[in-house]
Amino acid sequence: MGNTKVLCTASWEPGVPAWRKDSGMGWVTAEYSMLPGSTAPRKSRPRSGHTDSRGLEIQRLIGRTLRAVVDYEKLRENTIVLDCDVIQADGGTRTAAINGSFIALSDAVRYGLKKKFITQNPITQRVAAVSVGLIKGNTVLDLDYNLDSIADVDMNIAMTESGRFVEVQGSAEKTPFSGEQLEQLLNLARRGIKQIFKVYDKALRR
Amino acid sequence: MGNTKVLCTASWEPGVPAWRKDSGMGWVTAEYSMLPGSTAPRKSRPRSGHTDSRGLEIQRLIGRTLRAVVDYEKLRENTIVLDCDVIQADGGTRTAAINGSFIALSDAVRYGLKKKFITQNPITQRVAAVSVGLIKGNTVLDLDYNLDSIADVDMNIAMTESGRFVEVQGSAEKTPFSGEQLEQLLNLARRGIKQIFKVYDKALRR
Amino acid sequence: MGNTKVLCTASWEPGVPAWRKDSGMGWVTAEYSMLPGSTAPRKSRPRSGHTDSRGLEIQRLIGRTLRAVVDYEKLRENTIVLDCDVIQADGGTRTAAINGSFIALSDAVRYGLKKKFITQNPITQRVAAVSVGLIKGNTVLDLDYNLDSIADVDMNIAMTESGRFVEVQGSAEKTPFSGEQLEQLLNLARRGIKQIFKVYDKALRR
Amino acid sequence: MGNTKVLCTASWEPGVPAWRKDSGMGWVTAEYSMLPGSTAPRKSRPRSGHTDSRGLEIQRLIGRTLRAVVDYEKLRENTIVLDCDVIQADGGTRTAAINGSFIALSDAVRYGLKKKFITQNPITQRVAAVSVGLIKGNTVLDLDYNLDSIADVDMNIAMTESGRFVEVQGSAEKTPFSGEQLEQLLNLARRGIKQIFKVYDKALRR
Amino acid sequence: MGNTKVLCTASWEPGVPAWRKDSGMGWVTAEYSMLPGSTAPRKSRPRSGHTDSRGLEIQRLIGRTLRAVVDYEKLRENTIVLDCDVIQADGGTRTAAINGSFIALSDAVRYGLKKKFITQNPITQRVAAVSVGLIKGNTVLDLDYNLDSIADVDMNIAMTESGRFVEVQGSAEKTPFSGEQLEQLLNLARRGIKQIFKVYDKALRR
Amino acid sequence: MGNTKVLCTASWEPGVPAWRKDSGMGWVTAEYSMLPGSTAPRKSRPRSGHTDSRGLEIQRLIGRTLRAVVDYEKLRENTIVLDCDVIQADGGTRTAAINGSFIALSDAVRYGLKKKFITQNPITQRVAAVSVGLIKGNTVLDLDYNLDSIADVDMNIAMTESGRFVEVQGSAEKTPFSGEQLEQLLNLARRGIKQIFKVYDKALRR
Repeated sequence: MGNTKVLCTASWEPGVPAWRKDSGMGWVTAEYSMLPGSTAPRKSRPRSGHTDSRGLEIQRLIGRTLRAVVDYEKLRENTIVLDCDVIQADGGTRTAAINGSFIALSDAVRYGLKKKFITQNPITQRVAAVSVGLIKGNTVLDLDYNLDSIADVDMNIAMTESGRFVEVQGSAEKTPFSGEQLEQLLNLARRGIKQIFKVYDKALRR
Repeated sequence: MGNTKVLCTASWEPGVPAWRKDSGMGWVTAEYSMLPGSTAPRKSRPRSGHTDSRGLEIQRLIGRTLRAVVDYEKLRENTIVLDCDVIQADGGTRTAAINGSFIALSDAVRYGLKKKFITQNPITQRVAAVSVGLIKGNTVLDLDYNLDSIADVDMNIAMTESGRFVEVQGSAEKTPFSGEQLEQLLNLARRGIKQIFKVYDKALRR
Repeated sequence: MGNTKVLCTASWEPGVPAWRKDSGMGWVTAEYSMLPGSTAPRKSRPRSGHTDSRGLEIQRLIGRTLRAVVDYEKLRENTIVLDCDVIQADGGTRTAAINGSFIALSDAVRYGLKKKFITQNPITQRVAAVSVGLIKGNTVLDLDYNLDSIADVDMNIAMTESGRFVEVQGSAEKTPFSGEQLEQLLNLARRGIKQIFKVYDKALRR
Repeated sequence: MGNTKVLCTASWEPGVPAWRKDSGMGWVTAEYSMLPGSTAPRKSRPRSGHTDSRGLEIQRLIGRTLRAVVDYEKLRENTIVLDCDVIQADGGTRTAAINGSFIALSDAVRYGLKKKFITQNPITQRVAAVSVGLIKGNTVLDLDYNLDSIADVDMNIAMTESGRFVEVQGSAEKTPFSGEQLEQLLNLARRGIKQIFKVYDKALRR
Repeated sequence: MGNTKVLCTASWEPGVPAWRKDSGMGWVTAEYSMLPGSTAPRKSRPRSGHTDSRGLEIQRLIGRTLRAVVDYEKLRENTIVLDCDVIQADGGTRTAAINGSFIALSDAVRYGLKKKFITQNPITQRVAAVSVGLIKGNTVLDLDYNLDSIADVDMNIAMTESGRFVEVQGSAEKTPFSGEQLEQLLNLARRGIKQIFKVYDKALRR
Repeated sequence: MGNTKVLCTASWEPGVPAWRKDSGMGWVTAEYSMLPGSTAPRKSRPRSGHTDSRGLEIQRLIGRTLRAVVDYEKLRENTIVLDCDVIQADGGTRTAAINGSFIALSDAVRYGLKKKFITQNPITQRVAAVSVGLIKGNTVLDLDYNLDSIADVDMNIAMTESGRFVEVQGSAEKTPFSGEQLEQLLNLARRGIKQIFKVYDKALRR
């Protein structure tokens, strides 16, 4: 994702949110934030009472994507919190955060198995995300900041290793797109996601 | 959208946000909120310092969808604010809000032309939205609350009258979906959206 | 109340505020808010950390007025919340909210009796409110926005059906008023309130 | 007002709120707060994002009462802020704050004349406030905390030296009151207010 | 401390913060605030969502200083809250608040012994604070506002009666200071603190 | 500083805070925050309306220390913001943040000279900070988390290369300390700070 750097940390917390108590099932949630120095010009820290709605939307996306591949019962009544803090932003921070979070989650699961917080791996399958876009009619994979700012269509796709969709989020920033263009974008995303899974292999090997 | 009722109001405001000053171009933005009595049990009003991230995500979607069909230059340096207040919630509030907002926006444009705020219609084409979903492998159009809560996949689609996509947002709540299923969902959405445009004809006829 | 429209909703909530726990007695409270599109120009939604002190004052008045005609013991340990959301504002929103809330409360009591939340009607008597004012020395009943903005004295009166006062709130916006003028205003309010009770008869008949 | 102690300070601020700019007219406003140690048990300081609606209602009352006796044009484009901080609370804090603020305002006007901020006294007449109440059918003047907590009706009256009303605020905490009882309460308030004006004479003599 | 006036109130609260529950030990904490009228020009009250970081730093200092001379076990599971509200500010408000708080704490301990909240005096020894500074190379004791604003070094010292340090906080506002200058400042502080203890004798005698 | 890791970023911002406008002088300020994953258990992100007073105190200290070695006139009307984000916390985060910030500031000054924001180096001399403490009567340099939690006295010292003090902040967490012990602590700090300056040499060499 260009020069984007996102620090992804997974933390085990005993217990689950109040609405899920005594269900025997766990929870996975994510928080996303950009450090002030991650952009130029510097981005002010959120003041009390001001909301960064873009960040909230992204952290909901991260949480939803990961939860789609987690078996809550195997997680027992534990919560895993993924903290995604952007250290350097160059486009694609949300897909970088999903992929980094998946690795952190996998790491946390290993730790939890070792520490006997859980006895079975709750991750049902791997998931990864990429961005694709349309620029002057051409499909482009993994948009960095410069590409993103001129794209007519911006789409984020999260898929499983078996090639099924977990999230499909496409917006026509300028020009609405046809069904055929959508098909092309999805195919390009499929190819990109295969590459991410290869990165996972390296990152998670020990 | 089932028994969902959303009050959509469009307001003209002279001027544009600071970052857009002296561009000669206008802006369209939306705010979305649920009245406390719109759900059972009653939903508390947002307290200072607490954020309703779902609402923020929805209002960003509404604004983005409408802006995709607005010619900012014809709008001149004016802002149109769409307020979407849910009076009764029964699933599909976000698509109801998009469609209601489009009608309010059209109405506001007529008013602006009459009052000479603008001289040309800035709406480039009509846009409408529906939800579709997968329930036990079957595609379903326009999910009400009961359907939504059991759906495996929940998708919101916004399209123009010419059949091109403005927004495609699909999430696998439980089971990831195949490319074929995505195709079926998009086709169903196309049919639903045609019906919405007929409702527009009635609503906007005078 | 002119073209004022206030949506009043009553919700049953089991339990009472912490300071009233285990008293065997219920509670009635109100919240008041103006939708952004209810005024021209549009009224911004309250931001986190900013307080609409006028709205807080009004919701305290609504709650106090209704509580004066409620027998807490018959309500048992339940809370009824009245949500008053102004959809269109043209003066007299606080008296409209009191009267609309009384109707919603009566409706909620019927529902609670039917659902066996309670066994006896906790409403001890009817209460209604009107505004009166002095404009250039003349008394005026039910001030709409135009009248309100030129009034020398603005007074809100809540009375029971037996003609006793529950709330008397008069402010000299410009010119202090004499005891005689106060007497005239109270008499005018008595006549206005009788009319409101007739509206109640129609609204609550089924 | 029993053992109530309120520190009232008036501050001159050049300029007026934005909505009043370039009107040639001034503004008077008040802020009211209770120190944590003013009550037993200790009252927590307002946290960010929590609202003390009682305090907001009182400060609006103080401001309105004082503005009724101020000629804005003679004040020129200046703001006088009255800070009312309750050091010890024993009932009647709102009337104590009005009376203390009137003295502070008078003092500030003298200072402003001396410093040539203004050339004419903008105070048109004196104003003072007392509380009256009904306890078991008897009228009571100046309720301290013990009386206030058992009163059936609680009323705050602000009057000018000429005996005209500026504010009349009465609430039936328990039992609605008749027109005759209202008359008795107003007469008692008239007598109490005469005593306050004598206190003013002493406080403002130099 | 010049014309500085700080109202210091100590309140007993049963129980301790959550993290200290069931430890058998008490807690002492402080809150510091400046009344709006304590400075010229008037200081605005803290708005929701805005933080007065200077005030927070000071209240942490006050709490820490007092806790250094309190035996938590003798205090049992009680909290004493010190409220320091500045009524008039003329430099040295933090040291005035520490000294005033120590007197209020001593007073509260007497009250707690009398009321049998505790059976032994938890204050292990007396503590007092002064400010010292360097102005053009000269050491100065107890800086008022005028001195403070021109000081090159500003230092606050809290000491026990036995001459040991509890807090040493020195900042070079303009010119860094030598070890020798630090020694001179500490000696001056020792002399000043002896005088404060004499004031305590008078204040606490009954 | 043990295993502590603090990310320090310096950003140039044109202009200065409002109170410093048109003075011809610049400003240096710092912000300090701990990432949620920097501690175990995970530290929640600050919610709107809640204040992390420890963090505010630290960022004031960082800013003050750096400003003591900056010539505002050479900085012109520019602001340099230092963001200190703790990635891993193991004691000594405040001194690590000061030292990291000094390096970032030096780096930013080089950049500003190259980009011609300024023409002269505004840093008047180097400054560095260490923590020292007393544990069971023994002086200890550079306390990590384990040492810090058992220390009787905790002191942070910032010094210039010429051996003069910029900040001296010592608190007796448990036992007040003598003048002699203070002298020992200051001597130990002097030795530690010399080592930091050697680290600077390496970090800033290019």
